[in-house]
Amino acid sequence: MAVYTHLGAEDLASLIAEYDVGGLISAKGIAEGISNSNWLIETERGRYILTMYERRIDLADLPFFLGLLDHLSERGCAVPRTIHDRTGAAWREMGGKAVALIEFLPGVSVDRPTAAQAHAVGAALAQVHLAGLDFALERDNALGVAQTAGTLAHYDAMALGQINPVLPGVVAVATDVRDRWPGDLPRSVCHTDLFPDNVLMLGDAVSGMIDFYFACNEAMAYDLAVTHAAWSFDRRGSNFAPAIGAALIDGYDAVRPLQDDERAALPVLAQGACLRFVASRAEDWLDTPTDALVTRKDPMDYVRRLNFYAEAGQGAFAS
Amino acid sequence: MAVYTHLGAEDLASLIAEYDVGGLISAKGIAEGISNSNWLIETERGRYILTMYERRIDLADLPFFLGLLDHLSERGCAVPRTIHDRTGAAWREMGGKAVALIEFLPGVSVDRPTAAQAHAVGAALAQVHLAGLDFALERDNALGVAQTAGTLAHYDAMALGQINPVLPGVVAVATDVRDRWPGDLPRSVCHTDLFPDNVLMLGDAVSGMIDFYFACNEAMAYDLAVTHAAWSFDRRGSNFAPAIGAALIDGYDAVRPLQDDERAALPVLAQGACLRFVASRAEDWLDTPTDALVTRKDPMDYVRRLNFYAEAGQGAFAS
Repeated sequence: MAVYTHLGAEDLASLIAEYDVGGLISAKGIAEGISNSNWLIETERGRYILTMYERRIDLADLPFFLGLLDHLSERGCAVPRTIHDRTGAAWREMGGKAVALIEFLPGVSVDRPTAAQAHAVGAALAQVHLAGLDFALERDNALGVAQTAGTLAHYDAMALGQINPVLPGVVAVATDVRDRWPGDLPRSVCHTDLFPDNVLMLGDAVSGMIDFYFACNEAMAYDLAVTHAAWSFDRRGSNFAPAIGAALIDGYDAVRPLQDDERAALPVLAQGACLRFVASRAEDWLDTPTDALVTRKDPMDYVRRLNFYAEAGQGAFAS
Repeated sequence: MAVYTHLGAEDLASLIAEYDVGGLISAKGIAEGISNSNWLIETERGRYILTMYERRIDLADLPFFLGLLDHLSERGCAVPRTIHDRTGAAWREMGGKAVALIEFLPGVSVDRPTAAQAHAVGAALAQVHLAGLDFALERDNALGVAQTAGTLAHYDAMALGQINPVLPGVVAVATDVRDRWPGDLPRSVCHTDLFPDNVLMLGDAVSGMIDFYFACNEAMAYDLAVTHAAWSFDRRGSNFAPAIGAALIDGYDAVRPLQDDERAALPVLAQGACLRFVASRAEDWLDTPTDALVTRKDPMDYVRRLNFYAEAGQGAFAS
């Protein structure tokens, strides 16, 4: 959530001149995105998000990420399209870094979704999955269940226990979830990080899904499980909101009916989803100096969700 | 340069409902301002900057800061006006913090100003000074030459010397500049921080001056000297651009002709301006842990300017 690079009017104007978007009118660095710097740009022709890829992003993945936006928006998904430059390129180099110009979409991210909003999000996610079926490029999930189990096993119990005494016990849970993972569920392109922050809404409608930088080919029901874990609880994961979870699943099912094996797998998929965030948060926690100014996200927020899904089983997904 | 507080759609919508600006369409936290959080807000009626005052700002100063914007914009200065709520209030409280809604102005900040741009900035600054003459409220300069000399003298030579070996010698310069400070120059409301970052431009025209949170009653020629020091050098202060400095003064003089005593005082005022930034940067440097993620600004950038002004005398301000 920062702008890592300074860009002045001159840099921006010469970049914008490479696109058919008219002259530069305004540019504001925005506090969005964790792996890149972003500016909200206004030109004579419209508004755009300029993204500079700073770290964590493998440039070899840009054709997948930026091509996916075009593919999905062409198919009517609420996804910003990539603006191509005058030569047709989806990204350019600027000061040794890759930059892309992306459509600006209206909408605001909700903190406390209503059932109607969750229903719309479920439907929008299903649209992405259907539209992604014929996307030509592929990208592996670098944060799948096997990697998650590996990340957690890589830390010794002492380090994890210093975050929270219950965390060392989660390592065995991750191995167990990995071993119970269903291998043959239908796959498509998945967002895998569709938190409320990454969804723009206007009232009850989804006006935009953004930040596809974890997108990959995965089991579609896993993506639904990630979204369920991200939307159906309070921030700390202490309280489950059954009406929100049910509306999310119903909205999804209305656009892309879930198969029986997908429904049956939701409890273990949701546990895998929680473990993915436990692992990445534990990693960030142990990598962040205690006196850094960055707020560390507590892995326990997702251990609580994990425990809920383990106990509730199919009950977590009842309509 | 950060957003210190999370505001979701619900918080923003209920805040915006207190103003006559229509419904909320978009909100992006922007990386601007050092003492507050800012969002670029779009509503059905237009675009606005929402500012939340986080720290460093004394709430007792808000009537001065926000009233000044209205006062200057009513008099045709390129300054955003304050949007008042339905009760007429210039700011509201939200979660225990003061927030204000401010007009959005187009334009981008330049890194390498042209003479034409510097001329426009000088003229815009003179307009602020003239328009500020009848502003009813007053605010002392908390970073005047006496405070600057005091701040530098407060550190022991060892601490300053650890930043740079020449810094301890600057303490005596500050005392000398304080003692030579002219006491009777004409005063008005001054911005005192009109760096390129705080000026929005469209081509050669000034479309907005922003961030008036150091504004105070001061000698107008001092404000011109601050702006001269901020605009007429490369970032490190190693190279003076005489054409830029001359254009800035000419632009100012065309709108508000400088008095002879003001012109005569420019060399010492410019040294005072440099010392103000040496002092605040030294303070930030010594207060910032060495392993913090924040980039510390080098006080030496302004020691180099200080030395230039001391050596060049009136030569720095020749047309």
